[in-house]
Amino acid sequence: MNLTIVKVGGKVVEEPQSLTQLLSAFSQMEGPRILVHGGGRTATQVAASLSIETKMINGRRVTDADMLRVVTMVYGGLVNKTIVAQLNCQWSMVNRQCSALGLTGADLAIIRSHRRPPMPDGTDYGFVGDIDSVDAEALHTLLQNDTLPVIAPLSMGADGTLLNTNADTIAASVAMAMAALYDVTLVFCFEHKGVLRYPDDPESVIPYIDSSSYEQLKADGIVSGGMLPKLDNSFAALRAGVKRVVITRADQIADNSKSTIIQL
Amino acid sequence: MNLTIVKVGGKVVEEPQSLTQLLSAFSQMEGPRILVHGGGRTATQVAASLSIETKMINGRRVTDADMLRVVTMVYGGLVNKTIVAQLNCQWSMVNRQCSALGLTGADLAIIRSHRRPPMPDGTDYGFVGDIDSVDAEALHTLLQNDTLPVIAPLSMGADGTLLNTNADTIAASVAMAMAALYDVTLVFCFEHKGVLRYPDDPESVIPYIDSSSYEQLKADGIVSGGMLPKLDNSFAALRAGVKRVVITRADQIADNSKSTIIQL
Repeated sequence: MNLTIVKVGGKVVEEPQSLTQLLSAFSQMEGPRILVHGGGRTATQVAASLSIETKMINGRRVTDADMLRVVTMVYGGLVNKTIVAQLNCQWSMVNRQCSALGLTGADLAIIRSHRRPPMPDGTDYGFVGDIDSVDAEALHTLLQNDTLPVIAPLSMGADGTLLNTNADTIAASVAMAMAALYDVTLVFCFEHKGVLRYPDDPESVIPYIDSSSYEQLKADGIVSGGMLPKLDNSFAALRAGVKRVVITRADQIADNSKSTIIQL
Repeated sequence: MNLTIVKVGGKVVEEPQSLTQLLSAFSQMEGPRILVHGGGRTATQVAASLSIETKMINGRRVTDADMLRVVTMVYGGLVNKTIVAQLNCQWSMVNRQCSALGLTGADLAIIRSHRRPPMPDGTDYGFVGDIDSVDAEALHTLLQNDTLPVIAPLSMGADGTLLNTNADTIAASVAMAMAALYDVTLVFCFEHKGVLRYPDDPESVIPYIDSSSYEQLKADGIVSGGMLPKLDNSFAALRAGVKRVVITRADQIADNSKSTIIQL
């Protein structure tokens, strides 16, 4: 059975217009689905309003106790519930037999993690969780009951502490765990329609990448920089049993024909 | 089949010590349960930190757009997820086959409401919801899957707007809806062990109140003030099919022998 896991960044879900567009595209998709969202921009704004400084190291948020309260409020509350309410409202209008349910890793203990220890150089990310396990059976039960899980990027430590966890990592971990039960497609939304052959031409989407063409694209310098970890993670997910990874723009999630599809 | 619905105020769940005490008592209870919580004190604190003024009219929070963001963050995120994580952590330590799941009225669209129109005197409570319906079947499905719903005091308007809704009202409405499927006991936690015969003696708990003794207690002036709407609501729930209402202190929820029990 097919399962589609869609990860959308904060920017898409934090602006009413792009959120509406996403949910409209999302509601046109068929079959069981899981949505994973970010919310970093709103967290940074709320933190600033509370005079809490946002510190990033290598693009990752340093999460002290105050920042943990902020991300729990923003990811688990504001962003998650806004998406869930909009989805359920939209679906109730078209009589869909599907209901969105907001989750963090603490709910049903679906995503367990441990606090990341300080790096060898002494860098401490604080209340950040590295994932230990995803409860695929619990998510499977929800999907069987026609529920759409909407997952915020928070996991649960063994002592019941909530831990901040990167949304891409949550999406990939959920995809890998669910691959034992479903044919999983993992969809990463970002600002372009797909992986671009020419960075200046947003239409130059590479339609298909596999292990060998990836090596060639790297050798030719066509994919580089921030795209490398994204693609490395995609191949890691594929090697762990995920059937395919799609890199696309949020308004294209229901029709991937102009996106980049990645398979082994 | 029995179902116990416990409502706890913000004060109990917002302080680590009393939260631990509550969850410990809660984990000793048997059978299906639903927890409904408040969080007003934290909402007021977070609002103040964001320079948002808290306005109360007759003890009810006026909820403008900024305050709606705050209560969505605090009730749906911070308070709800802290409780859920602590419950699941505690249970995982004692190997209980039960998992807590945080919900707002928007999740699975379990509590639908409409925005309260301005009062005849012009008072407008803002984004406050009066409940239209509770999806008892959806909650029943969760309970059958050994899930403990933990409900935050937010409901969902028809257009997908989250609406602030009094936690006592949520608890009573959920109890009345579930009464079609279960023998429901509704437990309200407050600061005393029960309804007091002598306000200055915290041990003078009235063990049992029914319709006729309630009339006598009112006539004798023994119950008055803020206790009257609480008891009126309790009798309304009983008349709507709830089997009994218990008024108690959070640390006594597993053993009601020294509490006030209310029946028709």
